[in-house]
Amino acid sequence: MIGQMMQQPLLVSSLLRHAERHHGGQEIVSRRVEGDIHRYTFRDLADRSRRLAQALERLGIEPGTRVATLAWNGYRHLELYYAASGSGAVLHTVNPRLHPDQMAWIIADAADDVLFFDLTFLPLVRELGPRLASVRHYVVMSDREHLPGDIGDVLVYEDLIAEESGSYQWPTFDEQTASSLCYTSGTTGNPKGVLYSHRSTVLHTFAVALPDSMGLSASDSVMPVVPMFHVNAWGLPYAACMVGAKVVLPGADLDGRSLYELQEAEQVTLSASVPTVWQGQLRHAQEHGVRFTTLERAVIGGAACPSSMLRELEKLHGVNVIHGWGMTETSPFGTASVPKHTHQDVTDDERFAVQAKQGRCVFGMDLKIVDDVGNELPWNGRAAGHLMARGPWVLSTYYRREEADPLIDGWFPTGDIATIDADGFMQITDRSKDVIKSGGEWISSIDLENIAMSHPGIAAAACIGVRHRKWDERPLLVVVRAPDADVTGEGLLAYFEGKVAKWWLPDDVVFVDSLPMGSTGKVLKAPLRERFQDHLMPSRTRVSATSTEH
Amino acid sequence: MIGQMMQQPLLVSSLLRHAERHHGGQEIVSRRVEGDIHRYTFRDLADRSRRLAQALERLGIEPGTRVATLAWNGYRHLELYYAASGSGAVLHTVNPRLHPDQMAWIIADAADDVLFFDLTFLPLVRELGPRLASVRHYVVMSDREHLPGDIGDVLVYEDLIAEESGSYQWPTFDEQTASSLCYTSGTTGNPKGVLYSHRSTVLHTFAVALPDSMGLSASDSVMPVVPMFHVNAWGLPYAACMVGAKVVLPGADLDGRSLYELQEAEQVTLSASVPTVWQGQLRHAQEHGVRFTTLERAVIGGAACPSSMLRELEKLHGVNVIHGWGMTETSPFGTASVPKHTHQDVTDDERFAVQAKQGRCVFGMDLKIVDDVGNELPWNGRAAGHLMARGPWVLSTYYRREEADPLIDGWFPTGDIATIDADGFMQITDRSKDVIKSGGEWISSIDLENIAMSHPGIAAAACIGVRHRKWDERPLLVVVRAPDADVTGEGLLAYFEGKVAKWWLPDDVVFVDSLPMGSTGKVLKAPLRERFQDHLMPSRTRVSATSTEH
Repeated sequence: MIGQMMQQPLLVSSLLRHAERHHGGQEIVSRRVEGDIHRYTFRDLADRSRRLAQALERLGIEPGTRVATLAWNGYRHLELYYAASGSGAVLHTVNPRLHPDQMAWIIADAADDVLFFDLTFLPLVRELGPRLASVRHYVVMSDREHLPGDIGDVLVYEDLIAEESGSYQWPTFDEQTASSLCYTSGTTGNPKGVLYSHRSTVLHTFAVALPDSMGLSASDSVMPVVPMFHVNAWGLPYAACMVGAKVVLPGADLDGRSLYELQEAEQVTLSASVPTVWQGQLRHAQEHGVRFTTLERAVIGGAACPSSMLRELEKLHGVNVIHGWGMTETSPFGTASVPKHTHQDVTDDERFAVQAKQGRCVFGMDLKIVDDVGNELPWNGRAAGHLMARGPWVLSTYYRREEADPLIDGWFPTGDIATIDADGFMQITDRSKDVIKSGGEWISSIDLENIAMSHPGIAAAACIGVRHRKWDERPLLVVVRAPDADVTGEGLLAYFEGKVAKWWLPDDVVFVDSLPMGSTGKVLKAPLRERFQDHLMPSRTRVSATSTEH
Repeated sequence: MIGQMMQQPLLVSSLLRHAERHHGGQEIVSRRVEGDIHRYTFRDLADRSRRLAQALERLGIEPGTRVATLAWNGYRHLELYYAASGSGAVLHTVNPRLHPDQMAWIIADAADDVLFFDLTFLPLVRELGPRLASVRHYVVMSDREHLPGDIGDVLVYEDLIAEESGSYQWPTFDEQTASSLCYTSGTTGNPKGVLYSHRSTVLHTFAVALPDSMGLSASDSVMPVVPMFHVNAWGLPYAACMVGAKVVLPGADLDGRSLYELQEAEQVTLSASVPTVWQGQLRHAQEHGVRFTTLERAVIGGAACPSSMLRELEKLHGVNVIHGWGMTETSPFGTASVPKHTHQDVTDDERFAVQAKQGRCVFGMDLKIVDDVGNELPWNGRAAGHLMARGPWVLSTYYRREEADPLIDGWFPTGDIATIDADGFMQITDRSKDVIKSGGEWISSIDLENIAMSHPGIAAAACIGVRHRKWDERPLLVVVRAPDADVTGEGLLAYFEGKVAKWWLPDDVVFVDSLPMGSTGKVLKAPLRERFQDHLMPSRTRVSATSTEH
């Protein structure tokens, strides 16, 4: 027996339609790469998105065609989010922080038909241009007034918009239709595309907005600092339309001062970014003796939030931290570390310990942890296993890699090692490829790195498993000294005592000038492992625990 | 191009599965009709729901079969919600407050196969039994210990549960499958069935839980006082599982004292019921000089919330009122009167005026107002028109009435007259059939009733349009005097002056001992209109403005 309710597909355009009808007067504020502050409303966003959809049609962009962007967080990028997906094309947000070779590879793999880019990326696009065989049109996201002289056959965004009427009607189609495409940042091998659907996007948006996720409402002023080229800015460009929140888009200036000033000026209540960006804002506040006066919630993801940051945001600024976890393959929202009813009477320290975990599943997402042969492990906060994810906004296959099924028994292997406690709070203890297997037992490289980083003399640390005759693999700590610090290897190892089990103690410490970093700011351990793989083997002249390499 | 995310249908069982895995230890507290307080967890709910699903299978209940309930809010009713829908059968919650003839008609129309009922309804079921041809099994929702001697061939709920293992696996099927069935309370004509789907139910649940709706979280203790036999208790039995909130089910005792004591004992943070039930709790608090110490939010729907109630809950008890609107045909959640960013600096009085409206659309629901010929009217807070609704949890056709399409241009006509303001806040000014058309202009019967009811000498009021030679129709006020009051018709009409336009003033006032009420506590205007239709016609001997009829 079939239910008798209305058949309405879940479409990205329905989010914009809702925002226009029910929150038409709500503001969207953008700091433009042109330098000024731009303001308009959801009503304007809807009108200009319709014009842009008409312009895409005029450019011959058909349903399913990939529309690439190289852009910061701004209103024109938001218009592309709705115009491209809403018209049935696929929005492909390219990460401009990648190496140009990777960008060229990704744009070719996606076979993008048109490339929209911010003015700041004009030199980059000129460099890339000759290698982008699929791209038929280039559009600079600016107006004539701001163009630097002759730009060849590049189209101008505002010209395209101005030529259209806005009388466009958003088409209705199957909600399984692809809406957007993001590539994983993959620290090894070529990036892989994740192709979201309208259905997965709208369901994910509901999940993002729920009270135990970001808890978004029409009373909020929301600033997504996390880039719109990075997993759809964690869903905020969609969620703001769903709930009618004010939107504040910070453009290209992501330093602590710029963000702090914009946040205060626009009375931002919720902002979302990675720990290093939050760190910049906190440092600015500290140096200038100022406080966050309007911010209520800080969404922190992309990397583990240090416990000290949790405390500083709450105790100094009265900000509630929402520590979350997700990945490109999970749209990205998977978990948030929001306390439960059971935590209402715990101490601050106990609560911070809960919030420092990656968090619990929002409805729709499910997780499990398994051992090396796939047996599910208990949720006791101690057993660590391979983290597997499942849900309507989790990837099933990679774009154009349909032949290689990444799933195991219907679950997506995240590549993380994690524990889950009895309350369902998940904590990542390592990446699967980084976990150190010493005599068959696992040692968490992240735990050891965190301890090393908490030493005042250490600026950066990476812990890797290197070959060992007896234990197969043992931990080696590779660290960068803080400026003017004189910590020694022995001193650092002594610092570990009492903090971890004896057999977890790194076998040696190597001092280096810097650690290799990937395009998204994560340490690349593969080159370290290659370089130091024989560091503990007898054939190699053993360097003392204070060895320094350059 | 099709997106490449996991294909997972939106099923009612997925809500329970989530609650069991991620909130297994959360409490469900029920006041039983047996008299005591019962406590268990989501883990127990999931286990017993699986056993019940096995029992349904053993009774020969097949997918699509209707499973009827006559029950108060309690854990066994909750188990039926999940076991019936989760197994692919259709949960049909019958309203025990209807007239037995209507109940028999509804059960026959639904062709229910099995009837589960609370012990308190045993006499009713015995009375109805001979007329329920479709019902093959009767199950009393109790255990042997509480049975009143011989119950014939009625099955016992706890016996059924005890015989099963709980090893049941929830089946996966098309999310468009019917999940549950509710009948409209229809004040005229036979009730009509609304057949919800799994998809509509899960999407509705997301909407209910959003911050600008009920804002539900795992920190909440939620008490649905609104009956589970009345439009699925406004979605709370599903939403509590989605977010992992504590659930408090009040059973059959809905008087002010019982509810207040349970609310305090179980630290309820959110409760939901109709104004008259809230009134009982407020009266109890006033008479005993007590306060609501844990309640944070009061969800009020089913009828307009009086402004005085809004104030009393907020000012005296520190409770935030969420005034909502919906109907059986809209699952029911349609709008909530939650202020926006634009209301942050308004005065209390201005905010109360906003909250007293029926509210704005949650994402998914859309509304419009149209004139008699279907033209959309402006959203200016003044233009009143026929309210039309649309969305994935709005009815498309009535159960077994597929031949009669109730929609107009794809919109469901709610039967209400409403205004919508520039911020999207809808306010119902009348029922379409109750609006008074005087010389082609509309007069709101509800506005006139509200003014009459605010007079201290008036206990109840109904305003109806009656025939008039010159104006076609004019307002007649039918009122019940408050005990010991001596207000006259002239006095009451004088009270209206300055409160409405002169041409809105009722032409006469009739005093009666009581007003005819429907099964859900709404005044039935049809018999009043029939009785008084010629009250203003010259052929009838005109009774003075202080006329009294018995």
